[in-house]
Amino acid sequence: MTRKLYALCGTDRTRPFSPHVWKTKLSLAHKGLDFDVAPVGFTEIPKLEQGVTKIVPLLRDGEKLVSDSFDIALYLEEAYPERPTLFGGEGGKAMARFVEGWSQMTLHPPIGRIAIMDIHDSLEPVDRAYFRQSREKRFGTSLEATAAAGRADLETFSAKLEPLRHMLKFQPFIGGDRPLFADYIVFGALQWARIVSPHRLLAAGDVVSDWFERCLDLHDGLGRSVTAA
Amino acid sequence: MTRKLYALCGTDRTRPFSPHVWKTKLSLAHKGLDFDVAPVGFTEIPKLEQGVTKIVPLLRDGEKLVSDSFDIALYLEEAYPERPTLFGGEGGKAMARFVEGWSQMTLHPPIGRIAIMDIHDSLEPVDRAYFRQSREKRFGTSLEATAAAGRADLETFSAKLEPLRHMLKFQPFIGGDRPLFADYIVFGALQWARIVSPHRLLAAGDVVSDWFERCLDLHDGLGRSVTAA
Repeated sequence: MTRKLYALCGTDRTRPFSPHVWKTKLSLAHKGLDFDVAPVGFTEIPKLEQGVTKIVPLLRDGEKLVSDSFDIALYLEEAYPERPTLFGGEGGKAMARFVEGWSQMTLHPPIGRIAIMDIHDSLEPVDRAYFRQSREKRFGTSLEATAAAGRADLETFSAKLEPLRHMLKFQPFIGGDRPLFADYIVFGALQWARIVSPHRLLAAGDVVSDWFERCLDLHDGLGRSVTAA
Repeated sequence: MTRKLYALCGTDRTRPFSPHVWKTKLSLAHKGLDFDVAPVGFTEIPKLEQGVTKIVPLLRDGEKLVSDSFDIALYLEEAYPERPTLFGGEGGKAMARFVEGWSQMTLHPPIGRIAIMDIHDSLEPVDRAYFRQSREKRFGTSLEATAAAGRADLETFSAKLEPLRHMLKFQPFIGGDRPLFADYIVFGALQWARIVSPHRLLAAGDVVSDWFERCLDLHDGLGRSVTAA
């Protein structure tokens, strides 16, 4: 296999949880490309491939190394143009950046707070120390205080999904009749929550829950290859 | 002129303010299509063109009548395919529905609250009565109580624009290098606020403000043809 995807994991190497890595797993499957997953802990990332990146996903495709889930999607679209499109044209490529902005600015912060102790507890000791130090610096407070703030996020999370509910009145995927990378962007955030947190953020009967289940079914149920926490 | 756009106005017929009508004005200009604007009050809408619609915009294009800004954009894209695209392909068409969902679920409610008395006061007496009754039913409280809630929205509005700020790190428009209908969707919301409310929702130096100014410049400064409140 010439294609290798470095994926963030805790002590259980079979449960990659990074939202960004999930975007890339689905992007590769969307293009019909095989890949091996190489699980890594937080503190191993800067040592990968001669220190080429500080973030995952990192994809090796033959001689090519690409990091960042959006850059990888752009790379795959250019390198494999004859395979199913990830963007549906130039407009879709541009608007996927807005979807990324919405997902990262609206969904990631509350999920990060809700799941912060679950993530911490899932890590190897060396990665726990790194995670505590970096996240306490980022949030300006202790992990425990961030987790306490996350309890309020549980109440308000569902309301943040209203833009998706509006869109789903018209079509089954953000990409229209079929999923595109924009779907994988939002799926990645909710898959992260599904894998790391025992809290269920999507209620049965919610159209967003139906959409998420459709995404879990895609590409032979790739998203279901890791069970919910 | 065979093309006529019915546009919502108050007593000043030169200041159409509907966010949805602004989306269509820019869509028509984007396609390079001339049109006459026919100003109407809220209570005139159901009487237009033999009662074909309850909402504006309503576009008459020769024999064709189309209402709803998104449906009009889809119609224009199909009817005038040789002119500049409003969507940039099928992916962009689908993702514009998500942008619409975000704009209408995230930006419209606070702008509606912030500007509710300004809108009311700008209307003809017959439209004021309709507006009060319909909005008090929609919000479940008096216009005055909704306006009071809008004062809190002023504090939190800027934070809602974070998805745009993320996108603007990569490109000058939601549509990429050039504006697309998705830009006009969000522009419409902020243009509505600009025209009806003396509150300035965008701060100088904010990248969203810079983007909005770029949108005001488009199509020979069409957005600037109505001054700020």
